[in-house]
Amino acid sequence: MRSFSPAFRAELNELMKWRRDVRHFKPDAVDADLLADCLQAFSLAPSVGLSEPWRLVNVVSSASRQAALENFKAANAEALAGYAGDKAALYAGLKLTGMQDAPVQLAVFCDDETQKGAGLGAKSMPEMRRYSVVSAIMAFWLKARAEGLGVGWVSILDPNKLQQDLNLSESWRLVAYLCIGWPKDENLTPELETVGWEARDAATAALIER
Amino acid sequence: MRSFSPAFRAELNELMKWRRDVRHFKPDAVDADLLADCLQAFSLAPSVGLSEPWRLVNVVSSASRQAALENFKAANAEALAGYAGDKAALYAGLKLTGMQDAPVQLAVFCDDETQKGAGLGAKSMPEMRRYSVVSAIMAFWLKARAEGLGVGWVSILDPNKLQQDLNLSESWRLVAYLCIGWPKDENLTPELETVGWEARDAATAALIER
Repeated sequence: MRSFSPAFRAELNELMKWRRDVRHFKPDAVDADLLADCLQAFSLAPSVGLSEPWRLVNVVSSASRQAALENFKAANAEALAGYAGDKAALYAGLKLTGMQDAPVQLAVFCDDETQKGAGLGAKSMPEMRRYSVVSAIMAFWLKARAEGLGVGWVSILDPNKLQQDLNLSESWRLVAYLCIGWPKDENLTPELETVGWEARDAATAALIER
Repeated sequence: MRSFSPAFRAELNELMKWRRDVRHFKPDAVDADLLADCLQAFSLAPSVGLSEPWRLVNVVSSASRQAALENFKAANAEALAGYAGDKAALYAGLKLTGMQDAPVQLAVFCDDETQKGAGLGAKSMPEMRRYSVVSAIMAFWLKARAEGLGVGWVSILDPNKLQQDLNLSESWRLVAYLCIGWPKDENLTPELETVGWEARDAATAALIER
């Protein structure tokens, strides 16, 4: 049985602490081989029924990037309209995306209608396919951070519009829009905590007994 | 900036390879402190708007365990009814849960109506809260495996029925039922691949350009 050393486990804990949602990137390019290496994490991720439903779209053309950025701006304006007073002012001042400067931008989809896996494990909870995609993203995120790369997950988007604008299959559902690059600065504290939007609360992971 | 060594990165890759979905457990108990330590991974996980929407239920009573097992059996029978011929015979022979023998069983929920985070990042994609829970589960899974613990994710369940049977809030949605314990045997090959249900395909992580 493969075991892992206490030193490794301590480093793993550090990695999890330093895995931050990055929204400020240096302009430096990311080597294609390094990105490909980090993407190997997807193939090592769990997936329901081995369905491997992830579909990775490298958003490279200026037309696609523009469509994604405009999508974000519209969704962000709509979100801002839902806040009032101090909260609205605070929201308006947040930097919630690295889309303007991240050198690599991946739109990650789930193929809800994949035949792979023959539906095993996804009959009573079809959302398991999307959860498999999230698991793979998390594995990728940790692997990328171990290489020094920053990842930021943008969710302030209209998923249907992005799928259409990128001319992808209707069965593909957007799970994440990932901004990837070399972080400008790094901090152990989430930006939302620094600016006073919300604080972490260890008690959320407390066990309830049944 | 915190960096990670090539040796650590190689071990991380090994950890991702050895993170398997475990369905065969030894009867040995899991120390409560060790479990609590692994659950720290939740507090280090990303969550949309710092909403930390995970809710962890330790399924300990025999009544709760019985309800969960019966739930699985019903959902599994329904799933089996959807296959015919060889596929049905193969499905019927699969061990798809460790619920009969896993010493620790955690039902992980997402509080879809949490006020924490004030909805940031979850307006256009409210599923982001559930995705945050999945990210945390993946972090926990890796941390547990680094300690030698096996984790199995059961999704063949009626999520609404489990929420009702465990007498939990209606706003809590089941994301995962986790079986946790010391693995009976370990293998780098997923069981579904060994028995010929489905094979991994590295090409699923290929990049499409847009």
